[in-house]
Amino acid sequence: MNPAEALALLDRFRRGATTQEEVLNAFQAAPVADLGFAVVDTHRGLRKGCPEVIFGAGKTPAQVAAIAAKIVEGDGRVLATRITADHVRAVKRRFKDVVHHEAARCLVVERRPAPRNPGYIAVVAAGTTDLPVADEAAVTAGFMGNEVRRIHDVGVAGLHRLLRRLPEIQGANVVVIVAGMEAALPSVIGGLVARPMIGVPTSVGYGSHFGGLTALLGMLNSCASGLTVVNIDNGFGGGYAAANINALAAEAARRK
Amino acid sequence: MNPAEALALLDRFRRGATTQEEVLNAFQAAPVADLGFAVVDTHRGLRKGCPEVIFGAGKTPAQVAAIAAKIVEGDGRVLATRITADHVRAVKRRFKDVVHHEAARCLVVERRPAPRNPGYIAVVAAGTTDLPVADEAAVTAGFMGNEVRRIHDVGVAGLHRLLRRLPEIQGANVVVIVAGMEAALPSVIGGLVARPMIGVPTSVGYGSHFGGLTALLGMLNSCASGLTVVNIDNGFGGGYAAANINALAAEAARRK
Amino acid sequence: MNPAEALALLDRFRRGATTQEEVLNAFQAAPVADLGFAVVDTHRGLRKGCPEVIFGAGKTPAQVAAIAAKIVEGDGRVLATRITADHVRAVKRRFKDVVHHEAARCLVVERRPAPRNPGYIAVVAAGTTDLPVADEAAVTAGFMGNEVRRIHDVGVAGLHRLLRRLPEIQGANVVVIVAGMEAALPSVIGGLVARPMIGVPTSVGYGSHFGGLTALLGMLNSCASGLTVVNIDNGFGGGYAAANINALAAEAARRK
Amino acid sequence: MNPAEALALLDRFRRGATTQEEVLNAFQAAPVADLGFAVVDTHRGLRKGCPEVIFGAGKTPAQVAAIAAKIVEGDGRVLATRITADHVRAVKRRFKDVVHHEAARCLVVERRPAPRNPGYIAVVAAGTTDLPVADEAAVTAGFMGNEVRRIHDVGVAGLHRLLRRLPEIQGANVVVIVAGMEAALPSVIGGLVARPMIGVPTSVGYGSHFGGLTALLGMLNSCASGLTVVNIDNGFGGGYAAANINALAAEAARRK
Amino acid sequence: MNPAEALALLDRFRRGATTQEEVLNAFQAAPVADLGFAVVDTHRGLRKGCPEVIFGAGKTPAQVAAIAAKIVEGDGRVLATRITADHVRAVKRRFKDVVHHEAARCLVVERRPAPRNPGYIAVVAAGTTDLPVADEAAVTAGFMGNEVRRIHDVGVAGLHRLLRRLPEIQGANVVVIVAGMEAALPSVIGGLVARPMIGVPTSVGYGSHFGGLTALLGMLNSCASGLTVVNIDNGFGGGYAAANINALAAEAARRK
Amino acid sequence: MNPAEALALLDRFRRGATTQEEVLNAFQAAPVADLGFAVVDTHRGLRKGCPEVIFGAGKTPAQVAAIAAKIVEGDGRVLATRITADHVRAVKRRFKDVVHHEAARCLVVERRPAPRNPGYIAVVAAGTTDLPVADEAAVTAGFMGNEVRRIHDVGVAGLHRLLRRLPEIQGANVVVIVAGMEAALPSVIGGLVARPMIGVPTSVGYGSHFGGLTALLGMLNSCASGLTVVNIDNGFGGGYAAANINALAAEAARRK
Amino acid sequence: MNPAEALALLDRFRRGATTQEEVLNAFQAAPVADLGFAVVDTHRGLRKGCPEVIFGAGKTPAQVAAIAAKIVEGDGRVLATRITADHVRAVKRRFKDVVHHEAARCLVVERRPAPRNPGYIAVVAAGTTDLPVADEAAVTAGFMGNEVRRIHDVGVAGLHRLLRRLPEIQGANVVVIVAGMEAALPSVIGGLVARPMIGVPTSVGYGSHFGGLTALLGMLNSCASGLTVVNIDNGFGGGYAAANINALAAEAARRK
Amino acid sequence: MNPAEALALLDRFRRGATTQEEVLNAFQAAPVADLGFAVVDTHRGLRKGCPEVIFGAGKTPAQVAAIAAKIVEGDGRVLATRITADHVRAVKRRFKDVVHHEAARCLVVERRPAPRNPGYIAVVAAGTTDLPVADEAAVTAGFMGNEVRRIHDVGVAGLHRLLRRLPEIQGANVVVIVAGMEAALPSVIGGLVARPMIGVPTSVGYGSHFGGLTALLGMLNSCASGLTVVNIDNGFGGGYAAANINALAAEAARRK
Repeated sequence: MNPAEALALLDRFRRGATTQEEVLNAFQAAPVADLGFAVVDTHRGLRKGCPEVIFGAGKTPAQVAAIAAKIVEGDGRVLATRITADHVRAVKRRFKDVVHHEAARCLVVERRPAPRNPGYIAVVAAGTTDLPVADEAAVTAGFMGNEVRRIHDVGVAGLHRLLRRLPEIQGANVVVIVAGMEAALPSVIGGLVARPMIGVPTSVGYGSHFGGLTALLGMLNSCASGLTVVNIDNGFGGGYAAANINALAAEAARRK
Repeated sequence: MNPAEALALLDRFRRGATTQEEVLNAFQAAPVADLGFAVVDTHRGLRKGCPEVIFGAGKTPAQVAAIAAKIVEGDGRVLATRITADHVRAVKRRFKDVVHHEAARCLVVERRPAPRNPGYIAVVAAGTTDLPVADEAAVTAGFMGNEVRRIHDVGVAGLHRLLRRLPEIQGANVVVIVAGMEAALPSVIGGLVARPMIGVPTSVGYGSHFGGLTALLGMLNSCASGLTVVNIDNGFGGGYAAANINALAAEAARRK
Repeated sequence: MNPAEALALLDRFRRGATTQEEVLNAFQAAPVADLGFAVVDTHRGLRKGCPEVIFGAGKTPAQVAAIAAKIVEGDGRVLATRITADHVRAVKRRFKDVVHHEAARCLVVERRPAPRNPGYIAVVAAGTTDLPVADEAAVTAGFMGNEVRRIHDVGVAGLHRLLRRLPEIQGANVVVIVAGMEAALPSVIGGLVARPMIGVPTSVGYGSHFGGLTALLGMLNSCASGLTVVNIDNGFGGGYAAANINALAAEAARRK
Repeated sequence: MNPAEALALLDRFRRGATTQEEVLNAFQAAPVADLGFAVVDTHRGLRKGCPEVIFGAGKTPAQVAAIAAKIVEGDGRVLATRITADHVRAVKRRFKDVVHHEAARCLVVERRPAPRNPGYIAVVAAGTTDLPVADEAAVTAGFMGNEVRRIHDVGVAGLHRLLRRLPEIQGANVVVIVAGMEAALPSVIGGLVARPMIGVPTSVGYGSHFGGLTALLGMLNSCASGLTVVNIDNGFGGGYAAANINALAAEAARRK
Repeated sequence: MNPAEALALLDRFRRGATTQEEVLNAFQAAPVADLGFAVVDTHRGLRKGCPEVIFGAGKTPAQVAAIAAKIVEGDGRVLATRITADHVRAVKRRFKDVVHHEAARCLVVERRPAPRNPGYIAVVAAGTTDLPVADEAAVTAGFMGNEVRRIHDVGVAGLHRLLRRLPEIQGANVVVIVAGMEAALPSVIGGLVARPMIGVPTSVGYGSHFGGLTALLGMLNSCASGLTVVNIDNGFGGGYAAANINALAAEAARRK
Repeated sequence: MNPAEALALLDRFRRGATTQEEVLNAFQAAPVADLGFAVVDTHRGLRKGCPEVIFGAGKTPAQVAAIAAKIVEGDGRVLATRITADHVRAVKRRFKDVVHHEAARCLVVERRPAPRNPGYIAVVAAGTTDLPVADEAAVTAGFMGNEVRRIHDVGVAGLHRLLRRLPEIQGANVVVIVAGMEAALPSVIGGLVARPMIGVPTSVGYGSHFGGLTALLGMLNSCASGLTVVNIDNGFGGGYAAANINALAAEAARRK
Repeated sequence: MNPAEALALLDRFRRGATTQEEVLNAFQAAPVADLGFAVVDTHRGLRKGCPEVIFGAGKTPAQVAAIAAKIVEGDGRVLATRITADHVRAVKRRFKDVVHHEAARCLVVERRPAPRNPGYIAVVAAGTTDLPVADEAAVTAGFMGNEVRRIHDVGVAGLHRLLRRLPEIQGANVVVIVAGMEAALPSVIGGLVARPMIGVPTSVGYGSHFGGLTALLGMLNSCASGLTVVNIDNGFGGGYAAANINALAAEAARRK
Repeated sequence: MNPAEALALLDRFRRGATTQEEVLNAFQAAPVADLGFAVVDTHRGLRKGCPEVIFGAGKTPAQVAAIAAKIVEGDGRVLATRITADHVRAVKRRFKDVVHHEAARCLVVERRPAPRNPGYIAVVAAGTTDLPVADEAAVTAGFMGNEVRRIHDVGVAGLHRLLRRLPEIQGANVVVIVAGMEAALPSVIGGLVARPMIGVPTSVGYGSHFGGLTALLGMLNSCASGLTVVNIDNGFGGGYAAANINALAAEAARRK
């Protein structure tokens, strides 16, 4: 309810066209509606880039399928992460055109494609074992309307391989860097790239790696300015944040 | 050395205008020069937004003053973080026009102003004790050519105060959220804002706060999509990353 | 042995009706009997609200069934937590009327209903994966004679949903708040509610969540006054403490 | 603005006794006012027991004095915790009647006394070094309108001393238990007392005590049902929560 | 080779009854033999109370059986801890008279009984889930020639049960206290018992129990003088140390 | 009141030499006295070896002096640990004959000497920086009536120095082993000594030593059977436990 | 492309035997090739001792077989670590002569034997459960051209066994010490051996061993100079570093 | 006493030139002497490169001076680490020619120079704040007879600076890499260098750096083969291990 609508309501009330109760109800609802405005605004903003995403872990196939159906109905497309083959089968029964990104443990239904943002997002992975997390980031950013370039197996131990791919990394609007073990890659890339970078530590490692804690701490303490970090193995979070940043750039370009 | 220069060199060599040794030297230097190209490119990119920043902690006043002089000479302006009154005095002896941001523990010399990026960055702080870190973020982002709006004392314990400032937060291009204790603020803002958000956990708290670890873990595990995190008390890192993102948006707008 | 009994014993001793040894034994036993008084008092107090509860984990089905039978015999009702289907089957062989709260992993036999306390306890859960722990809290508080209102899926990421349910939360005598991940919910509710609140952190999360440690630390460092905390996933403890508090209120009302 | 006031406003509006603008303004304030309602409700509830409390640590004497003056103006009394002698001096300049609880590191100005709740709160401390934290809890609960009984030096190592004070502990409406080292006291009391108990771990200890972490973990893992816990050294939080619980009991008695 | 033997050897050498080489060899062996003296002394001392014990975890049934056979051959009896049914079957093929302590996960062959130490060792367990660890302690101490009295289910939550068993605990020469969760039991017993006490923390608990770390820290920080601690779940270590202490007492009595 | 006194009282009562009231009063005190029995028994046992010990840290000089005076009055001697020069000065004002063990940070007044236990306790220290903790252990064990032999600077890095002192270590009734850094010493001694050993980890070290945690964990995981452990830097605890064990041996010899 | 080749190319270019394009292409590759120079140099150095090693964990049998084939093709031999029986079967299909080191979880194909380094590397293991890690170290060092002597079951608890093997350990060029539990072995050996030592902590232990963290910390804090450490269970890393050191010695001898 | 001396002694004994007691004494000393052999061997080995080193922290100036005097007397030179100006003054009173390495917190007296090893050791430091630790490593390695090249300020953030110094690093016999923050430098160098590398993590950093733990974990989990690690800030340990390795190479060359 915006001010104009509010004034109109008061007019109707003074004219006797509505009751005192109706006015009171409308205004009592208003706080939520108004806050809702903010929220709806947010939601609208998100909706342009990304409808609600289903976190599959801990949900039954039936639950995932039901939620997916509801979201597709509204938004025309849906992304579910951390899903299993069972989840995929359940969703497939409703949507023939579901795409299963097996390594990324994601599924996508996309009937109404997302608007595309200019430029591309680079998803860089240090080792082959980091690929599932990198894939999750890539699928997420792609789903949100971005071109994604995957640059794999460029760990710092083979610096020349990384340097060969450097121009492609430097050309990206946003760089997502996925690394386990000691996670030195973001520090090296961070010295060579001026664009926003998002580090995704992975739980790849053993011994004193402590399930990814070492990689996480390494990234948080990186000497590379412009690097921010998400939770361990949170490929979705990394891809989402990158898409979010690129959406800002796209919008800035549109506004211009 | 770019390809054109390389061909010219070979021409000169074939014509006898240069020696074999000179050619070999030039090409042997090339790897660094070429990599240097990348680096210089990076530097150039950075230079548009931010020349090298001095981390004052552990440096003597004389060292800070000397480095500051060298950077101002090249870039016309400099930012030093984590500085003390002694550092300021030392720099003041060379530059009358140094600005001391006392709460932020920063100093700035700015003879050649940075180009301004459109839009603004919101720096939101949960409590009054988080202000020094928030100020560091604000000074950094401002130094890098951004309008900064500071929104303070909007902890989740007084939700209505936060909601009053919500439109201002939602209007920002990037939101930096500084919070200690349990750091619930990013989660609440994250549900209401669609733009890139950067969380800066602070060491404000006691008991099981463990020097900011609790705030850090809280932010890393936040349910808010689009939130990324920097190290504890790293206001500089938060402000830098935000400026970096806004620079991308500004550039996207220019390219348009 | 009360003073009257003691004087009678001494009389019998002086009359030669009992031996020195008997007197000495009686007085040596007295300390335990006296302490026993205190304990019995305590037990009586507990018994009004809650007979002994069986912690099923690590006990065999036969053990649980035997203990349950013994408690029902004395108290007319029993609660067992952390039980499996096997436990339920074993208890069912003795009691046809056992109720199995599957999600809560609890079973209840209730032949003699608990006296009801006025008012209600709100059990608020941030996400759907927190439900088993919330259910355990709800079943426990219900078993102890309280009306329980369950308010689910009101995480801070969707603030408007939480605010819609706010009056119901504010109307409760005690609020149990169950949350995993960064556990920001208690901080938000804590700013809006004046009644006693008990936080139950859950192990829901991944990466740097460390099995619920992050949620626990978040709650312990919450800026919300009036919030106290129990162990990770300890739904029983949360429900019990809430029931304990409401029992005090009920008793205060009765005493009036 | 409560519903009755809202209806009255609409009445005045219909009668022409107020303008459309005035109504709109009133309702536009309403979102906040309405959310404020909740908050105000909270505040009102709190105000009966406790106006805003000043956390002195990290605030200047002038700041504390200014905030204290503002709160006393509105509520007639104020509590400040974690204060130093300097804070006290600054506040004394404005209020001659400030009471300095030195051990508790608290100051109180109390011109309009808080309404008293029936019953009493027991604050039990294991050792003499736990006293500052226990005192903070006691001062807080007392400030919020409760009789407080302090029971000190009853560590489990001298069980007979504890048992001598047991009736007094069992007679309390709420028990706050303050303990450092291994914090075994709540477990022992928890087996003997049926009322709500709040554990406050202290940082008293050394070696593998890790600044109170051991005491905190001990309390969180206590086998005593009905025990909840606050942060390390958080005497204020313990006293506040206890007062909150006793206020519920007092209100239940009033409602009866 | 003791000094007397050495002198005899030199005598034989001077008399020409042995060669220079033989003398040299004997003395060259001596360093080890002499150090061996110490070791042999140790072994002899141990042998009185306890031959080498087999730690079954990570050993194959065949390995355990072979080692057991070798030890029985020398010492007439053997103890193996952390064994499975498979280990027992393998040992049974060689020794019909193997005793399998199932709960304790131990097996014993005892053809030559250990000499008995006077007095008894009390093994006290807080809860029923602590029993396997307590049993391991009891079997170990029993195997080493001690009467063991098991006192179970005397957690501090039911203080009266503990106090009823107190005389039996106070009468022991050494007390082994096995407890999980917050491990408050040693602190309570420690205030009532003057004899050496050994705490064995167990991994029984959940949430912030961290696999027994909380119980371990609780015991290490206990206010009870005379309490020492072994590793988590190390029932063998607790029983062994208790037996070791009682052996000293037995020897002191013999020496008298 | 011990059993003999109780029987005497009853005799007097039967003879008419005392009134019923007096008997009742005596036994009414008994519950505490009787529980006290346990405690008094404990105290008596302790008193032979050790009256109450004052932990000086966190107590004022006046407090320490007052407590010391009270204990000396009853027991004829007192030990205070973790004391400063100020504490010593305060005690000296009352007792000219106070002995200040400066390195051990202990003071002792000993007017009525403790009965001496046969045998001796070895206090072994790995490095010179471990000496203050070793001294505290030695002073404590000495105060409790034991001969103490100090064996210093026998770290495993110079194995020959350790082996030279081995007979002296092997001859002790109990061995207290004080070690920081990686605390390998108990493992080496544990393989050579059959007697009870108590490890006292110290906070000596740096880097990943974590204030003694590494030494503590090293001792808890030692392969040496018969080793038990006390808290970091807890020399008092180590000396007390050793004295406790030797007192058992002394008593066993007496009982014989 | 080494300098000689570069000069030859330029010669051919001046003589007209090659085109400008070809020269440019060669040198354009050069940046990488030149950086590659470094890398190739490294690789060449490595190749003498060790071609690329396959880390089997997380790779499919097909992947391991394919990579192995490619490496054997180039280097004539290959080592794969952390492999399973499935990996071995897959590799066997291509190479009949694969050697499966089962305990070490390694496989080796060695058609072109590595040049042998003089001297030998001692791999010392504290306990039998440390053997898999020790074997991995031994296989790695052997594969890289070193004689390896395995010295097992020499834990510090049986010091005489260790001392008997001492000359063999002292005679090694490099000593790899593999130990779990409290990892005291490196400290003892470190006091007796002057050569480079590498500690490999293992995850062997339980309770407060924390998956090898205790052993790791013990080694890092060892008082033994000349000891360096690798990650928990990283037998490969330990063997590799030892081989690396011995290769330096071998090269120094060759250069002489 | 070597075999030849032993045979000579026996000869003298047979000839009556020495008594039985003397022979026995000599051989009784032998165990230690023989073990001493090993130790002396070790010492001799060490002495070539390094006499005993004084760890100054926690020692008084007088103690350091006395120990230094004793070592110089025997070895002609001494190194003391972690010393203060007071230590230096005290040593200077005895030795005019003491050299104070202020940044390294070391002092050296060198009257009899150490034999020089061929080749050089590179000490690489990531940042200027890592210099004190790097200096300690350099002084130690230099004292032990090695040429040391210091390569500073080559953090991975400025990769081109590192690559420019690469040939110098690759030319070293051993590389010591000193780094704080996320410690990515060893991983990058590790991919480019074939020689033994020793990582020294420093406590330089803040927030989640946890006093160097992050740098330590980063190095332990590094993907660089051939890298081993010492304790946080342990520059001495790093320099010593490097010198130890280079001594092996020098000896191998000599043996050749």
